[in-house]
Amino acid sequence: MEAQKKPFRRILLTGAAGGLGKQLRERIGAWADVVRLSDRANLGEARAGEEVVHCDLADRDGMLALLEGVDAVLHFGGISVEDRWDPILQANIIGLKNLYEAAHKAGVKRIVFASSNHAIGFHPTTVHLDADSPTRPDGYYGLSKVFGEQMSRYYWDRFGIETVCIRIGSVMEVPKTHRILRTYMHPDDLVELLRCSLVTPRVGHTIVYGMSDNDANWWDNSKAGHLGFRPKHSSREHEHLFPFAGYPADDDEPSKYQGGPFVIQGPMYE
Amino acid sequence: MEAQKKPFRRILLTGAAGGLGKQLRERIGAWADVVRLSDRANLGEARAGEEVVHCDLADRDGMLALLEGVDAVLHFGGISVEDRWDPILQANIIGLKNLYEAAHKAGVKRIVFASSNHAIGFHPTTVHLDADSPTRPDGYYGLSKVFGEQMSRYYWDRFGIETVCIRIGSVMEVPKTHRILRTYMHPDDLVELLRCSLVTPRVGHTIVYGMSDNDANWWDNSKAGHLGFRPKHSSREHEHLFPFAGYPADDDEPSKYQGGPFVIQGPMYE
Amino acid sequence: MEAQKKPFRRILLTGAAGGLGKQLRERIGAWADVVRLSDRANLGEARAGEEVVHCDLADRDGMLALLEGVDAVLHFGGISVEDRWDPILQANIIGLKNLYEAAHKAGVKRIVFASSNHAIGFHPTTVHLDADSPTRPDGYYGLSKVFGEQMSRYYWDRFGIETVCIRIGSVMEVPKTHRILRTYMHPDDLVELLRCSLVTPRVGHTIVYGMSDNDANWWDNSKAGHLGFRPKHSSREHEHLFPFAGYPADDDEPSKYQGGPFVIQGPMYE
Amino acid sequence: MEAQKKPFRRILLTGAAGGLGKQLRERIGAWADVVRLSDRANLGEARAGEEVVHCDLADRDGMLALLEGVDAVLHFGGISVEDRWDPILQANIIGLKNLYEAAHKAGVKRIVFASSNHAIGFHPTTVHLDADSPTRPDGYYGLSKVFGEQMSRYYWDRFGIETVCIRIGSVMEVPKTHRILRTYMHPDDLVELLRCSLVTPRVGHTIVYGMSDNDANWWDNSKAGHLGFRPKHSSREHEHLFPFAGYPADDDEPSKYQGGPFVIQGPMYE
Amino acid sequence: MEAQKKPFRRILLTGAAGGLGKQLRERIGAWADVVRLSDRANLGEARAGEEVVHCDLADRDGMLALLEGVDAVLHFGGISVEDRWDPILQANIIGLKNLYEAAHKAGVKRIVFASSNHAIGFHPTTVHLDADSPTRPDGYYGLSKVFGEQMSRYYWDRFGIETVCIRIGSVMEVPKTHRILRTYMHPDDLVELLRCSLVTPRVGHTIVYGMSDNDANWWDNSKAGHLGFRPKHSSREHEHLFPFAGYPADDDEPSKYQGGPFVIQGPMYE
Amino acid sequence: MEAQKKPFRRILLTGAAGGLGKQLRERIGAWADVVRLSDRANLGEARAGEEVVHCDLADRDGMLALLEGVDAVLHFGGISVEDRWDPILQANIIGLKNLYEAAHKAGVKRIVFASSNHAIGFHPTTVHLDADSPTRPDGYYGLSKVFGEQMSRYYWDRFGIETVCIRIGSVMEVPKTHRILRTYMHPDDLVELLRCSLVTPRVGHTIVYGMSDNDANWWDNSKAGHLGFRPKHSSREHEHLFPFAGYPADDDEPSKYQGGPFVIQGPMYE
Repeated sequence: MEAQKKPFRRILLTGAAGGLGKQLRERIGAWADVVRLSDRANLGEARAGEEVVHCDLADRDGMLALLEGVDAVLHFGGISVEDRWDPILQANIIGLKNLYEAAHKAGVKRIVFASSNHAIGFHPTTVHLDADSPTRPDGYYGLSKVFGEQMSRYYWDRFGIETVCIRIGSVMEVPKTHRILRTYMHPDDLVELLRCSLVTPRVGHTIVYGMSDNDANWWDNSKAGHLGFRPKHSSREHEHLFPFAGYPADDDEPSKYQGGPFVIQGPMYE
Repeated sequence: MEAQKKPFRRILLTGAAGGLGKQLRERIGAWADVVRLSDRANLGEARAGEEVVHCDLADRDGMLALLEGVDAVLHFGGISVEDRWDPILQANIIGLKNLYEAAHKAGVKRIVFASSNHAIGFHPTTVHLDADSPTRPDGYYGLSKVFGEQMSRYYWDRFGIETVCIRIGSVMEVPKTHRILRTYMHPDDLVELLRCSLVTPRVGHTIVYGMSDNDANWWDNSKAGHLGFRPKHSSREHEHLFPFAGYPADDDEPSKYQGGPFVIQGPMYE
Repeated sequence: MEAQKKPFRRILLTGAAGGLGKQLRERIGAWADVVRLSDRANLGEARAGEEVVHCDLADRDGMLALLEGVDAVLHFGGISVEDRWDPILQANIIGLKNLYEAAHKAGVKRIVFASSNHAIGFHPTTVHLDADSPTRPDGYYGLSKVFGEQMSRYYWDRFGIETVCIRIGSVMEVPKTHRILRTYMHPDDLVELLRCSLVTPRVGHTIVYGMSDNDANWWDNSKAGHLGFRPKHSSREHEHLFPFAGYPADDDEPSKYQGGPFVIQGPMYE
Repeated sequence: MEAQKKPFRRILLTGAAGGLGKQLRERIGAWADVVRLSDRANLGEARAGEEVVHCDLADRDGMLALLEGVDAVLHFGGISVEDRWDPILQANIIGLKNLYEAAHKAGVKRIVFASSNHAIGFHPTTVHLDADSPTRPDGYYGLSKVFGEQMSRYYWDRFGIETVCIRIGSVMEVPKTHRILRTYMHPDDLVELLRCSLVTPRVGHTIVYGMSDNDANWWDNSKAGHLGFRPKHSSREHEHLFPFAGYPADDDEPSKYQGGPFVIQGPMYE
Repeated sequence: MEAQKKPFRRILLTGAAGGLGKQLRERIGAWADVVRLSDRANLGEARAGEEVVHCDLADRDGMLALLEGVDAVLHFGGISVEDRWDPILQANIIGLKNLYEAAHKAGVKRIVFASSNHAIGFHPTTVHLDADSPTRPDGYYGLSKVFGEQMSRYYWDRFGIETVCIRIGSVMEVPKTHRILRTYMHPDDLVELLRCSLVTPRVGHTIVYGMSDNDANWWDNSKAGHLGFRPKHSSREHEHLFPFAGYPADDDEPSKYQGGPFVIQGPMYE
Repeated sequence: MEAQKKPFRRILLTGAAGGLGKQLRERIGAWADVVRLSDRANLGEARAGEEVVHCDLADRDGMLALLEGVDAVLHFGGISVEDRWDPILQANIIGLKNLYEAAHKAGVKRIVFASSNHAIGFHPTTVHLDADSPTRPDGYYGLSKVFGEQMSRYYWDRFGIETVCIRIGSVMEVPKTHRILRTYMHPDDLVELLRCSLVTPRVGHTIVYGMSDNDANWWDNSKAGHLGFRPKHSSREHEHLFPFAGYPADDDEPSKYQGGPFVIQGPMYE
């Protein structure tokens, strides 16, 4: 009996040495004959079905080479926390420009972009958002994610390169804070959302919030219904960890906004 | 012990010899003392609790007679696929006018109208719709369904005849194509939605999408919450049938629009 | 010195023997080298720059011939008041189908369609509408206008034939009733709106209300801002004609709805 | 082993001798070291962990004393049905003013206000509402609830006192009428919603509908997603009690509006 | 030659001794054969075409008598500034209840209610509102105006008594502060809006902002288009009076909110 | 007689050597005791009331010095057309970051940011936008303007620095193309909008389209009503320059989108 054909010949996972990248590396092998992994950090040896490429997002020529022969991209590379301007500029702004230029030149037609809830982090915790709500970044990091969403919007309007922008909440097995009860995304749910983002026949330019089926939530994903994403996990099973952590709230800024602690970390001027 | 009273004395099912009509004939007997069945095709013998009437929708006098003594109508008659203008004109336009005229004259107060997703079929597959989204018919057939929805709107505004317009997706046990994962409606769910449409005390002029609880979906039924319809089935149990049928999509028109293949079938000029 | 080039070679005015048609015939000569006029009624002799074609909208072959060689259409033909079903069916439903089929076959790329406020006539007089408000036809006539708007929507989505649907209010020099203070459109403003509808480079499928700059009004045209239509007239100069005609309103249906007397004229069953 | 710390030192339950008040008294002991109970009716003896205060809402000085030392309030006091003007004025209008004045002076920072579906009872049964839909009170009682919602809005804007306004449907174990299938709230779900309203870190001024997970429903709670309320019960298990109670509806006012029988009870002029 | 018939037999102006009342008394004589004037303050002698009635709004029996024989009401009575609770309760809450009860019993079918911008005064000065924006009262006074708007909503839904609620800005000849450039309403424009509110055939329950055609503005009146109100004046001719009164704003509350100084005046607890 | 006090002590105009900058330099002297002018190009001699500073936006230290002692900024510096990535990165991305960092450190509280219609240039010419419509940049340039709008949003949310983002259309005396009839902004109207943006007491984070009162238009400024901007000019007086330039449109991309020729200029990869 023949092995079943995989949906892609080659997909690229950037940021494969990062926190999420490492987890994803273990779980996406079934989606492509070859998974190309890239990072500027050490990725170790390529395993069966893998290609390993050392590349910095800010390296334009390197990026042009990296995208060659790729069918689809899972872009998890770049800075993933609030930081000083320069690293964010290099990886998340110049890097995004390099990614889309290279994708265009290499003929890549779909990208899944790891955006972040910090693109909307300055919305208060008492409002409900959907994909069309105005962005309100909560720092240089969030600002760079809005930039990436708009870069991808442009490449869709201009060249028909499709992108799913996932505004990822907090990916972990067990929520670490009371706030994360709302932003929680179980790793399985992230993998499922990536799968949906890759195999849905048409996605155009879709914005979706990356979260599990949490009881308490700030975000409405109905406009991404075409992706068919149904999370299987929920933070409700972990609510007992923060029994009275709620009211009365500390009178500090982080507890007022969806972005939580990020809203006071920036801007890091030096 | 007494038999329980049925909710209606007589309901009419048009199109009873059609694909859906035949299935419904088997399942709606409990709703009325008498189920009147009509079609222009052969309906066979009337069984217990049935009346069989041979009638063409375009036959005005026949329709006047058909509606006499009826409490409520399930209108499944007419052309149900893209077709040339003339048959659609006769059955779905003139027929609709005849139906509402006859219902008015006979004092019928509620109609459940089998509309179609083809009333909105030219919306792209990446947008989410609800009952108030603008219609975008994908052919003469879809256009005739918009006409029917508006005819029923008029009879509600003018005479208080209530209609539930069901924009039916794809009714079948097992989805036949990848697109149908989104439009899928299990026959049980259709029967349940018809029941809800008949027994809800007031429906005014309600538009509802006829679909099961599919993970991937384009339509939001919250504005029809008063109907109390909760589908029990989902296409998710059939997703394995189309494992990699999605991306990369063929670059053809049908895969771009919710109406699928219908969008290129018409207009059939002759 | 050379005569200035006219914007079109040949435009077609249907319904040229009708009330509005006659007025327009006098005023549109500057827009095309040839104005083709059609009606099923007598149009008299063709004048300089005119072609006269006798044609019934329900005559499919006649319509195919009529549209040959035409650059753009002003469609004012058909029934323009509430009427029995059959004449509306022939002229406004079958006629519309014939018009778009013929336009498609002849390569016509733009149509200005005389729709009507009766497409939304069952909205109460206390609500404000725009181009996306749900239609609520107030009779067979209004229903046929919704049908025409949807037919044109389909030809735009399917073949890129552009249409401006003008929901005309009440075109006259002096308002005849209190209601018309709200629906009033001075003939000059109609001519200007037709001009805008013809010369705007792209119109896609645009819906616009045909009214002057009346103080009292029910309709918002901002979504048609690309047309650049600014009415020069207003019913305010005629308000003195109906000094106390307002409150207390008669407790009849016509005064409750935007469609006025139309809302009780139909349906004319025979 | 130490007993776990309770989230509040002292909470106040007003209306503790009323129908809902009695049920709540049995179930909220775990939320505070001390539950202060008040009513103008007899509350019996204080039990362990309780304080009993006899107080009329219209008694301003009494209210000032009642709120002293309170961390949070569950306000279930006042008239809870349609009634004559004077009792509603005293308890629900003057009483509300007294409550918020006293809360302000005592430094109370959160109130859960038992509002009612009768604040929106004059909406037809065929429309779907959310927290921002315009209010349409169905009597003096509903009007007093809108007043309370606005009083609490003011204290949030002016002094940052948070309120969750719960537009309670029909709290009971088993629905008593067909209408209640839509408004049903199981007592457990009410307790859970109160808990969510108390322990969510920030609520600002939140409006939420108090209902179980009923299949048939008129209300959308997505804008209160930050509360994390997920009902566990549903009226669907009781639908068999009203098998054909629906169509055809009696042609009376109560069956046309969400407020049901309340819409014809008022105004009680004497 | 006969004198022209006036539109009303008898209209009632409450609050006729107040600031606006006195101005209106001079200007509304042409609208009715008899203008009944009421106030609890001295109104002086009745002139030709006038009736003078001394009446306190809180006096229920007096109000019942006052409304007898009245065709329409201009309700300008009650407290018109922020004040202590008791006077507002008596005049603006109990008084409103008395007014509508009396109107109902006397068969009055239309009321023009002087509401206030203070019903929405806690909206920031950087947002734009229309008739459906949520109310945010800025004190007891604003709260009483919301109450009146909702009382009138109820009488429209319950008995079909029509009301136009005018959220009056600042009526004066010359703006006194920089804020009033936005809220300015010339007295002529108020008179014109009252006229429109009285003579429009149907108004249902209409909310309209009372302002002139000011360049700087916070409010959108398009939903009241059926009234036909077009202001003739504008604060722009007075802008030179406050040349640099704007930026930098004082960092105080009144300059942040549309309600201006009212937002810090209340609540007046004693 | 004393000279009247000017509203600001010192305002900064960046880009003062550019096309618009030169015009503005001539016209803003009345707004401040000192107008500081900056550019990386030659600005000539400082005149009375001027300070001239040579500064590149990408020079962080230079920017810190430039903002010292400034009350408000008119930011017209940077690249103002589609260009290669690097100059846009330096001036419009890094430059914007430097501007806001410097403004923050210098205590500047208000900035007027010259954004551009190219932030929304990929919207079709048949849609109408307002300040909350999603952005759709039409190139690197438009993308940098979205970045600037979001940077300013962040500094408002984080530090309360106010910004008015003006999405400028086409500033010139006489429209040069048919498209510019829609985007036209007379220089006087730009100056007036800048004045409004500076002197309005509170602006928070306001987005406004910079256009004259053109008959044909794509943009709705009602959400910026608090600015009090009323343009005095209109492209209508120039429409005769492009008599038949409209229909039939060339079938090219630039005529399909609001951004016009920009939509095909980028991305300039080298």
